[in-house]
Amino acid sequence: MASTPADYKLSYGLWTVGWTARDQFGEASRPALDPWDYLPKLKEAGASGVTFHDDDVAPFGTDDAQREKYFTRFKDAAEQVGLTVEMVTTNTFAHPVFKDGGLTSNDRSVRRFGLRKLLRNVDRAAEFGAETFVMWGGREGSEFDNAKDLNAAHNRYAEGVDTIAAYIKEKGYDLRIGLEPKPNEPRGDIFLPTIGHALGFIAQLENEDIVGLNPETGHEQMAGLNFTHGIAQALWAGKLFHLDLNGQRSIKYDQDLVFGHGDLISAFFTIDLLINGFPNGGPKYEGWLHFDYKPARTDYMDGVWDSAAANAQMVTMLADKAKAYRADPEVQEAFRTAGLMELAEPTLAAGESISDFLADRSAYEDFDPQIAAERNYGFVRLNQLALNHLIG
Amino acid sequence: MASTPADYKLSYGLWTVGWTARDQFGEASRPALDPWDYLPKLKEAGASGVTFHDDDVAPFGTDDAQREKYFTRFKDAAEQVGLTVEMVTTNTFAHPVFKDGGLTSNDRSVRRFGLRKLLRNVDRAAEFGAETFVMWGGREGSEFDNAKDLNAAHNRYAEGVDTIAAYIKEKGYDLRIGLEPKPNEPRGDIFLPTIGHALGFIAQLENEDIVGLNPETGHEQMAGLNFTHGIAQALWAGKLFHLDLNGQRSIKYDQDLVFGHGDLISAFFTIDLLINGFPNGGPKYEGWLHFDYKPARTDYMDGVWDSAAANAQMVTMLADKAKAYRADPEVQEAFRTAGLMELAEPTLAAGESISDFLADRSAYEDFDPQIAAERNYGFVRLNQLALNHLIG
Amino acid sequence: MASTPADYKLSYGLWTVGWTARDQFGEASRPALDPWDYLPKLKEAGASGVTFHDDDVAPFGTDDAQREKYFTRFKDAAEQVGLTVEMVTTNTFAHPVFKDGGLTSNDRSVRRFGLRKLLRNVDRAAEFGAETFVMWGGREGSEFDNAKDLNAAHNRYAEGVDTIAAYIKEKGYDLRIGLEPKPNEPRGDIFLPTIGHALGFIAQLENEDIVGLNPETGHEQMAGLNFTHGIAQALWAGKLFHLDLNGQRSIKYDQDLVFGHGDLISAFFTIDLLINGFPNGGPKYEGWLHFDYKPARTDYMDGVWDSAAANAQMVTMLADKAKAYRADPEVQEAFRTAGLMELAEPTLAAGESISDFLADRSAYEDFDPQIAAERNYGFVRLNQLALNHLIG
Amino acid sequence: MASTPADYKLSYGLWTVGWTARDQFGEASRPALDPWDYLPKLKEAGASGVTFHDDDVAPFGTDDAQREKYFTRFKDAAEQVGLTVEMVTTNTFAHPVFKDGGLTSNDRSVRRFGLRKLLRNVDRAAEFGAETFVMWGGREGSEFDNAKDLNAAHNRYAEGVDTIAAYIKEKGYDLRIGLEPKPNEPRGDIFLPTIGHALGFIAQLENEDIVGLNPETGHEQMAGLNFTHGIAQALWAGKLFHLDLNGQRSIKYDQDLVFGHGDLISAFFTIDLLINGFPNGGPKYEGWLHFDYKPARTDYMDGVWDSAAANAQMVTMLADKAKAYRADPEVQEAFRTAGLMELAEPTLAAGESISDFLADRSAYEDFDPQIAAERNYGFVRLNQLALNHLIG
Repeated sequence: MASTPADYKLSYGLWTVGWTARDQFGEASRPALDPWDYLPKLKEAGASGVTFHDDDVAPFGTDDAQREKYFTRFKDAAEQVGLTVEMVTTNTFAHPVFKDGGLTSNDRSVRRFGLRKLLRNVDRAAEFGAETFVMWGGREGSEFDNAKDLNAAHNRYAEGVDTIAAYIKEKGYDLRIGLEPKPNEPRGDIFLPTIGHALGFIAQLENEDIVGLNPETGHEQMAGLNFTHGIAQALWAGKLFHLDLNGQRSIKYDQDLVFGHGDLISAFFTIDLLINGFPNGGPKYEGWLHFDYKPARTDYMDGVWDSAAANAQMVTMLADKAKAYRADPEVQEAFRTAGLMELAEPTLAAGESISDFLADRSAYEDFDPQIAAERNYGFVRLNQLALNHLIG
Repeated sequence: MASTPADYKLSYGLWTVGWTARDQFGEASRPALDPWDYLPKLKEAGASGVTFHDDDVAPFGTDDAQREKYFTRFKDAAEQVGLTVEMVTTNTFAHPVFKDGGLTSNDRSVRRFGLRKLLRNVDRAAEFGAETFVMWGGREGSEFDNAKDLNAAHNRYAEGVDTIAAYIKEKGYDLRIGLEPKPNEPRGDIFLPTIGHALGFIAQLENEDIVGLNPETGHEQMAGLNFTHGIAQALWAGKLFHLDLNGQRSIKYDQDLVFGHGDLISAFFTIDLLINGFPNGGPKYEGWLHFDYKPARTDYMDGVWDSAAANAQMVTMLADKAKAYRADPEVQEAFRTAGLMELAEPTLAAGESISDFLADRSAYEDFDPQIAAERNYGFVRLNQLALNHLIG
Repeated sequence: MASTPADYKLSYGLWTVGWTARDQFGEASRPALDPWDYLPKLKEAGASGVTFHDDDVAPFGTDDAQREKYFTRFKDAAEQVGLTVEMVTTNTFAHPVFKDGGLTSNDRSVRRFGLRKLLRNVDRAAEFGAETFVMWGGREGSEFDNAKDLNAAHNRYAEGVDTIAAYIKEKGYDLRIGLEPKPNEPRGDIFLPTIGHALGFIAQLENEDIVGLNPETGHEQMAGLNFTHGIAQALWAGKLFHLDLNGQRSIKYDQDLVFGHGDLISAFFTIDLLINGFPNGGPKYEGWLHFDYKPARTDYMDGVWDSAAANAQMVTMLADKAKAYRADPEVQEAFRTAGLMELAEPTLAAGESISDFLADRSAYEDFDPQIAAERNYGFVRLNQLALNHLIG
Repeated sequence: MASTPADYKLSYGLWTVGWTARDQFGEASRPALDPWDYLPKLKEAGASGVTFHDDDVAPFGTDDAQREKYFTRFKDAAEQVGLTVEMVTTNTFAHPVFKDGGLTSNDRSVRRFGLRKLLRNVDRAAEFGAETFVMWGGREGSEFDNAKDLNAAHNRYAEGVDTIAAYIKEKGYDLRIGLEPKPNEPRGDIFLPTIGHALGFIAQLENEDIVGLNPETGHEQMAGLNFTHGIAQALWAGKLFHLDLNGQRSIKYDQDLVFGHGDLISAFFTIDLLINGFPNGGPKYEGWLHFDYKPARTDYMDGVWDSAAANAQMVTMLADKAKAYRADPEVQEAFRTAGLMELAEPTLAAGESISDFLADRSAYEDFDPQIAAERNYGFVRLNQLALNHLIG
C-alpha cells in the first residue's frame, strides 16, 4: 500500500516557500507573506515540521520587543497548525556586515557580532525545542587565495563552533549542531566545502561530541560528488545529525530544485539508504527529512504550494519503490552475486593476526589473480533491477 | 638571486617520465625504458628524489628471484645517481583482479590478496628508506550506488589501512602512510574523494597517528575545489605528510599536466604556502615537492625530459616570486588593510568567558553593523599586487 | 501494451560490447571475441543494426587480402543474423600517428594519411549500405593554447570534411556525414566541442548539405549541457542525422554508461522528443537509436550481454512512459497552462509589419508588466506530472 | 616599452562598477551612484569607452520625459569625460515579467513587450552612435525539459533577432547585433548556451549578415570550454563582433572576476590572439576590449576603482608579454618544430584532385605511420616558453 507524507518526518525551511524569487539577475516575482501565513499550507503539503533562520521570523534589526512578538506569534501558529520546529538556523550571510564571513571574517568586531548573533539564536532554538542547530557558513571563505590566513581562519572557525557548543552544554540544552558544507556560491571557495571537509574539521574540535553534519543534496553535487556516498560516510562516522534534501542538475550554480527533480537515480538511492539502511545493517538515520529547495521563479503562489507538495510526493513514491526493491528476491540474489554481503565480512578472519595472515599462502602465493579477475559482479544488471523498480 | 632546483626537495614518480602514453583511446606513443634508465635524466631535470609503485620496477607477476634483481639494480642505480627514494606506493589498480578495488572489493579473496600486496610493499618501502607510503585507492568505489554496502566498504577500508599501519608499527619502520584522495576516474565515484573525506576517515582510525594525506593538485581541482585551501586544512589538522604537484584545467578527466601549466594563480599560492608558510605562522610543510604528472602524449622522448625540467623550473620561478611578494612592504600593508593579521587574534579575548562575552554590549547591542559593512578589505587590490609579482 | 525492442530501430557499436575494459589506469578485464561473434548476442539484446570503426573489424595494419576476408566474413555474419550495418565510422584516434589529430594534425603527412584512411572507409561504408558516416575527431584539439594556429586548424578541418563530402557526391553514394562533438578527453580541448560548435562549423562548409550531427548524450553532459536542448537545436537546423545514446553522471571523464543509467529524467525527455516529437509538431527524428556505451569493467561476459539488453530495455520502458505522458489529458492541460502551444504562435501577427507592431500601444505603452509577471506557468507541477508518469 | 591603457580600446559596462553587490544570498554592500557619476573614475581607470543597459541609465518604468533627461545627461557626461558609448544592451532579464524569457517566453504578450523594449533600445543605441547592440538572453531557457516546445522556442528566438536586425536595416543604422551565449544561471539551461550554439543559430537567420557574437570569458568557462578556442572559431566564421573579458575559476556560478584573475594562462593566450592575431595570419579582431566583471562584494568604493584599474592593468601587462613572446626567435623556432606553420598548408596540394590524391602512394600505401608517430612536437616546451614570457 502506498505510504503517505504522514508516514515520514518531513519538514521544510520557512525560507523555501517564503522565497520571493529575487535572484542574482532579477527582482522578486512573488509577494512575501507573513511568516505564520505559510504554515497551514506547509502542513497541507505534507509537513510535520518547520524550520527557520532567525531573520526569517524577525528581520535583521528588529527591536527586541517587536522581535519577541514575532516569535511568539510564530510559535503559537506552529503549535496551532501542528508543526514541530525541529531545527533552527542563523542568518550570518545576508547583511553586508557578514560580507567576509561571520565566524572567520578578517574583522574581529564582525566575528564577535556574528558569534553573539549565533549564541542568541541558540537560546531561541532551545526555546522552540529544536533538536538541531544548523550552521551554514555561506560567507566563510574567499575569492582570492591571499585574502585569508587559512590556518587562522580554521582556528577561528573552530573557536566559533566550539564556543557555541560549549554554550549549549553550559546551558544544558538538548541541542546538537549540524554544520552544512557547500563548495562555493556566494563565495568563490567556501570553507568546509564538502561533507568530508566538515568531518575532518569536527574531528579537531574540543566539543566534537555534539557537532555533526547537515549535508545538502545539491551542495555535494555542485562539486560533482555522490550525495549518497557522502551521507553514508557521515553515518559511518556517527555524524549524520540532519539533512537537506533538494535537487541539482550537474555542476553549476545552486539550483535548489524539488527533491528528485535533479538526479533522480541518486535520489532513489538516497531514500533507499535513509529508509532501508545499509544492506548489512549498521548506523541508521533516524532524523527528519528536511527540504531546502526553492519554488521556481517562473511559478506564482499556486506553484509554491505545488512544489512544496511535490517534495513530499517524491519522498513517498521513492520510499515505496525502495522498500519493494529491497524486498524483491531477485534483487537479494543479485546482492549476493555482487558480493554485497561478503563485503561485511572482515578481511582478516576473527582472531587472525598479521603474522597468521602473512603465513596464509592461499591469500597470496597460491592465489590466482586471473580467476578472481574474471568474476562477474553483475553490477549493471543489479542497477537495471533497481531501475525496473524505480520506473517499472 | 634566482633559486635553483637544488634549493628544494624535488622528487618525481618513476611512472611520470615512464608513461608510454597509452591512454583510454589510444596506444602508446613512446617506448618504455628500463626503470633505472630514467634516473640520470631525472637528476638532470632537477630531482633529488624518486618514487615508484612496486609494479613500476618489477612488473606484476614477476617471480621472486627476478624481482629482487630488479629492485637491487634500481636501488644501486638510484644511489649511484644520487636520488633518494623518499616515497613508495603500491599498484592496486591496474590488474583486473582489482577491478572492484583492493581493500574494498566485494570479493574477500581479492581484499586479502590486495592487503598482502600492500604489506609486502611496506617492507620494500622500509628497505628503500622511504619516509612515506602513499596509498591511492583508485579502484575503491563504484559506478552504481547499489554496488556497495557503503558502511561495510568504509569498515573494510579502515580495516585495511589500520592493518598496514599496525604492521608498520609492529616492524618499527620509520614510515608514515599518505592517503591520496581522488573524486573519480577510473571509478565513477571513488571513496575518499577529497582531502576532506580522507581527513574525516583518518579521524576514525585506530592508528591515525601515522596516517595522513598525500593530496594531488589536479585531483582536488577535478571536484572544482581549491587545492591551496585543501592542503591548508590538512596542515591545520597536522596531516599534510606528502603531496603530488601537477596541473589540471577545469573539471574534466585527470590531465596530469606539468605543475603550473593548469591553474597558474592557484599554483603560485600553493607554492607561496609551501615555501613561505601561513602569514601569521603555524604548521609548515617540511616534506618533498613531489611531481605526479604525465608528459604530453604528443611529445616524444625529448619532450619527456623537457616536461620533467619544466616542473622544476615552475617551482623555482614561482618560489622566487612568492618570496619577493611576501617581502614587499606594499603587500604587507595590504595584508594589514585586509585584516590578515587580525584573523590570527582569537575572537574571544584571553580569559574572556562566554558570560563575559555575552555581557559585552559593544560586541552586539551597541555595535553598528552598517559601519563594519562599509569596510574596504581591498581584496582585489591585494590580488592584483600578487599578480604584479607573478607576472610583473 | 508494452513495446518491445523490435518496435524501434536500435543499433549498437561493435566496439561497445567488444570493449575489453582496458582503461587509462588498468589492463583488460575481459577477452576479445572475433568481430562476428558479437552479432548473435547483439540481436538477442534487441538490436536491428550494428555499426563499426574500420579497425574494429580489420585491425590497423592488416594487409589488404586479409582485410577483405575480415570484412566479407563480417558482412556475411551480419546478414545471416539479420543486422543492418546502418553506420560506419573511422578510427583516427588510436594509433599514435594520430596523436595530434587526423585532419588537423600539425603534420601534413599525417593529415594526408588520415584523410586517405577516411576516404577508404567511405567506400567501405557504401559497400555495407550504411546511411551515415560518423566522424569523431577525438584527437583534433590541443592541451595548450599555443599548440595550434586555430584559424588554420579550422581551415584544415573544413578542408578534410569537405573533401570527404565531395568524394561521397563524386561517387554518388547515398551517405551522409555525421560529425560527433565532444568537449575533451583524450585531448585537453577538442575542436567542435559541442553540438553548437559543430552546427556553426557545418554552416561554413561548401558541401554542408550532406554534413550533419551525431551527438552523444554523455559528450554534451561532460560540458554540463542539456542533451535534449542540444538535439532539439540540431533538429531545428535540419541536422540531426544520427545519434549516440548512453549515460553520464555529471561533469567528469567520459563514462559511457548504459542509456538511462546516468541522468534518468534527461533520458526520459530525450526519448519523449525522439519518439513523440515536439509538442507543436515540426522536424522529427526518423533515424536509428544507436547505443555508444561501455559495459562495466567490473562485469565479465555475462555482464556484457546484460548491459546490452539494458540499453534496449531502457528505451522501451521510457518510450512507453513517454507515450502515456503525452496522451494524459492532465498533461495536455498543464501544457496549455504553461503556454507551450502559445509559444508556437509567432510574436508578430500574420502580416504585421514592424511599423504596425510599433504602433500597437497594447503591446508596450498600455501593457501592464506586473500582471504578466504574476502568471503562474506551473512548470514545477508539469515536471511533477512527468515524474508521476516516469516513476508512478 | 610598457604599453598603457590608452594604447587599446578599453570599455566597461556601466553595470560593472555600478554593481552594488546585492547577490543571491545577500543585500547590497555598496551605495549606488548616479550613472554619470561613474564616468570620470572609469576614464581614470583606463577606459576609452562605456556601455550600458537601457535600465542602467533610466530604471524600468521611468516615464518618457524623465527618461530623456537621464539619457541626455548621461550622453553629455560621457562626451565631457571623453568616453565613447561603443555598445548598448537591453535588460530583458531583471523584471519578473521576463521570468520565462523576453523573446522566447511562453507568454506571447511578454514576447511582444520584450521585442518592443528591444526595438526601442535599438533607437537609443543608434542615437548614442554605438557600433554593437548586444543581446544577452539570460532568461531564455528553462529548468525543466518539458517547460518549452524547443522547436517553437528556436523559431521565436530567430523571429525576434531577425526582426531586430530587419529594423536596424530598415532604419539604416550602422549597428550590428552581438549575441551573448551563456550556459546557465539564472535559468537551469539557457538557450544558445555556448559560442558554438550561437554560431549555429545565426546560420539559420534571414539577416545573419549583421548578427554575430559577443562571447564572455567566464560564460564559456562555466561549461568547461576553452575561451580562446571559442573566439577563434567565431573569428574564423567572421562573427566575432564584440567581446566581454572577465575572470572565472572553474565550473561554478558566474563569478565575473577581474580579467586575468581567473584562468591566467588562458587570459594570456586570449590577449595573444586578440593583439597578435593567428600565427599564420587570417581574420583579426579589431573591436573593443570590453570588461564585464563585478567588483568584489567584500570591497567598498575604493575597491571598485581599484578593480576597474586592475582590468586595464591586466590587459596592458598581458599584451606586452604577448608581444615579446611572439617576437622571441626561440618561440618562433618552437612554432616551426611544433608544425604551426605547416598547419596553414592545405592538406591537398594546389590543384590536386581527389583522384590525384588517391593515386599518391606516398600518402598512404608507402607511408610509415610509425615514423610519423615518433615526431616530437615539443608542445610542452613551447608552453613552457610561453610561461617563461608570462611570469619570467
